[in-house]
Amino acid sequence: MPRRELPATARNPQPDAERIAAIRLIRSENVGPVTFRDLLSHYGSARTALEALPELSRRGGRRQPIRICPQSEAEAEISRAERFGAELILVGDPDYPTPLAALDAPPPLLYAKGDTSLLQKPTIAIVGSRQCSAAGAKLARLFATEIGRAGFVVASGLARGIDAAAHQAAISTGTIAVLAGGIDHVYPPEHDTLQQAIGERGCLLSEMPFGFIPRGQDFPRRNRIVSGLSLGVLIIEAARRSGTLVTARLAAEQGREVFAVPGHPLDPRAEGTNKLLKSGATFVTEPADILSALSPQLNVPAPQLREEPLATPHDTSPPSDDDRGRVLSALGPAPVDIDSVARATGLPIRSVQIAVMELALAGRLERHGGLISSSTPGGDLYPGP
Amino acid sequence: MPRRELPATARNPQPDAERIAAIRLIRSENVGPVTFRDLLSHYGSARTALEALPELSRRGGRRQPIRICPQSEAEAEISRAERFGAELILVGDPDYPTPLAALDAPPPLLYAKGDTSLLQKPTIAIVGSRQCSAAGAKLARLFATEIGRAGFVVASGLARGIDAAAHQAAISTGTIAVLAGGIDHVYPPEHDTLQQAIGERGCLLSEMPFGFIPRGQDFPRRNRIVSGLSLGVLIIEAARRSGTLVTARLAAEQGREVFAVPGHPLDPRAEGTNKLLKSGATFVTEPADILSALSPQLNVPAPQLREEPLATPHDTSPPSDDDRGRVLSALGPAPVDIDSVARATGLPIRSVQIAVMELALAGRLERHGGLISSSTPGGDLYPGP
Repeated sequence: MPRRELPATARNPQPDAERIAAIRLIRSENVGPVTFRDLLSHYGSARTALEALPELSRRGGRRQPIRICPQSEAEAEISRAERFGAELILVGDPDYPTPLAALDAPPPLLYAKGDTSLLQKPTIAIVGSRQCSAAGAKLARLFATEIGRAGFVVASGLARGIDAAAHQAAISTGTIAVLAGGIDHVYPPEHDTLQQAIGERGCLLSEMPFGFIPRGQDFPRRNRIVSGLSLGVLIIEAARRSGTLVTARLAAEQGREVFAVPGHPLDPRAEGTNKLLKSGATFVTEPADILSALSPQLNVPAPQLREEPLATPHDTSPPSDDDRGRVLSALGPAPVDIDSVARATGLPIRSVQIAVMELALAGRLERHGGLISSSTPGGDLYPGP
Repeated sequence: MPRRELPATARNPQPDAERIAAIRLIRSENVGPVTFRDLLSHYGSARTALEALPELSRRGGRRQPIRICPQSEAEAEISRAERFGAELILVGDPDYPTPLAALDAPPPLLYAKGDTSLLQKPTIAIVGSRQCSAAGAKLARLFATEIGRAGFVVASGLARGIDAAAHQAAISTGTIAVLAGGIDHVYPPEHDTLQQAIGERGCLLSEMPFGFIPRGQDFPRRNRIVSGLSLGVLIIEAARRSGTLVTARLAAEQGREVFAVPGHPLDPRAEGTNKLLKSGATFVTEPADILSALSPQLNVPAPQLREEPLATPHDTSPPSDDDRGRVLSALGPAPVDIDSVARATGLPIRSVQIAVMELALAGRLERHGGLISSSTPGGDLYPGP
């Protein structure tokens, strides 16, 4: 297949070859947002990183060759997006949402369909129980309406219950729905019409490939984008153990304001929100409570992109097999940070960073945001390697 | 009528003549807890203060003689208490509840009926809406039961709704009901049986004379005792403008921990509690939340009685008519403290204190706890002069 050369545009200023390489990189085996960030930081460009992948994974202990996403597949993804009317946004593009870019390991690639100008506006997330009460849905509509009127975009996850109520009420003022599956995949089925309406008047957003059907572990990834897009997250109704609480935790870890609506202690739908309020979430009963907390941030400069360059290949010799062995031995099932591994092994921090990248590409450790653990199945709420 | 000489006992160590004088003083015209405290502090004994009353009120500008409670009336009150089986407890008596004695102007006199040993135990108040929901009443029972089991006495105001539910659940572990009327006056009528049961197995408490029928302004005085007895006050359900919120405010002013149970923002019975939670009350959904906050206080020494002696008659000459006029001119409808009046008038603080006492006895100013204002009708939630 002949290589398609797409011109770099004002909106997509990265040269086409680099964009294609970035897509191939994030779609390659064992590459998640964290490894993507490390690779780009280490090699300076997606193209160079892509070339280094086989050798890095081999050094990490991988026996079979790592699966690299072929150029044809990346080009097909671009074509499919064009046909669907979606915009491909890479981290670093001007359309990429600024608060999301400020995350520790932002999603490298997003598809957006609809009014992408919403991605540059101050956003507040409203999320909550799928099995919400009628009063909960009413509150979601009330908050979404007022927050929209105050000039904020309302983000949510297009789930049943609170999410859908919030989207519906904010569709005329601006709403962003983040999908756990591909941007063309309708889920849940009964939100067919709503999803289509948001794709026209609001904005649909997904980091997943086209046609991707979401699995259980993909919903926390979606939730991370919902909160990452937003200045604050409002939780309306949440049971004791619920995905909504995961969103609240991710939001807090991202430094976002977490707001929660209280409920009666004997109402199981309030157990999660009351628990959040006990542990420090901001107590909210009316839209003004949120607006007074967040409106000052409208005039604050956007957060800056993190820039924590890793070692370049030139100033550190690659870690040895022995170094990698020491890193692996230092890991257990409980996630730890790179600094702890450096202290435990006595290795320079740059060597540990490279060894971790290699081992991640070889599938021999697990990433949990900025933390790493030994490779054990299950329990991964965070973006993968 | 011959004077009855009651012997001073171990439980009532104050000599009988002084006890009678104290009763007469608090039952005299224009004498409330604040003026009582100031008079005792100034004159050292109730007997001397009682003798000074006519002259003080005359100096304050009173034309008709002030009504002094006759000795026969005080003696009749004592007899009535004995017949009713109630104990008369004066501030300073060992049975007087320690946290209540630590208030700025404690009730000078209390009647207690039932198990008065409860008055010396650590106490938590549970109060709330008279028109509570079934879920609210259930919560009140649940909290009262667990708080009782944990070794605390449960205090409340014997009102309908939350108060009654809390008393009922705590009757076997210990409960104190503070009445706004006389200790022999049944109110509300449907709590006849409950009031009698508490008078036998728990403890009834009132600062009012026998047979006294409570008026609207007497309920905040009752609430002040409910919170003043207690280490903390739990509010379960309260409408936006309610007596329960007055209790919460008094409790906060008394330095008591204020706990509130949240509710759904669309439930009017939660408007008051949610408002309290927004303004800093401790968020509570289960008894453990209160017990963990208050249990450490079980081992803390009881608060000490305040001892802020006023001037003695010997070291300050009485204020002149001109001084009193300056004090009156400095007052407006908004309550201010003595220090502000001293600054505004340029008078020594001790002169202002005495002038205020005289003017209060003459009925020419109003007291609001430690604050004073010009004499205007209405709005007095605090103990009187």
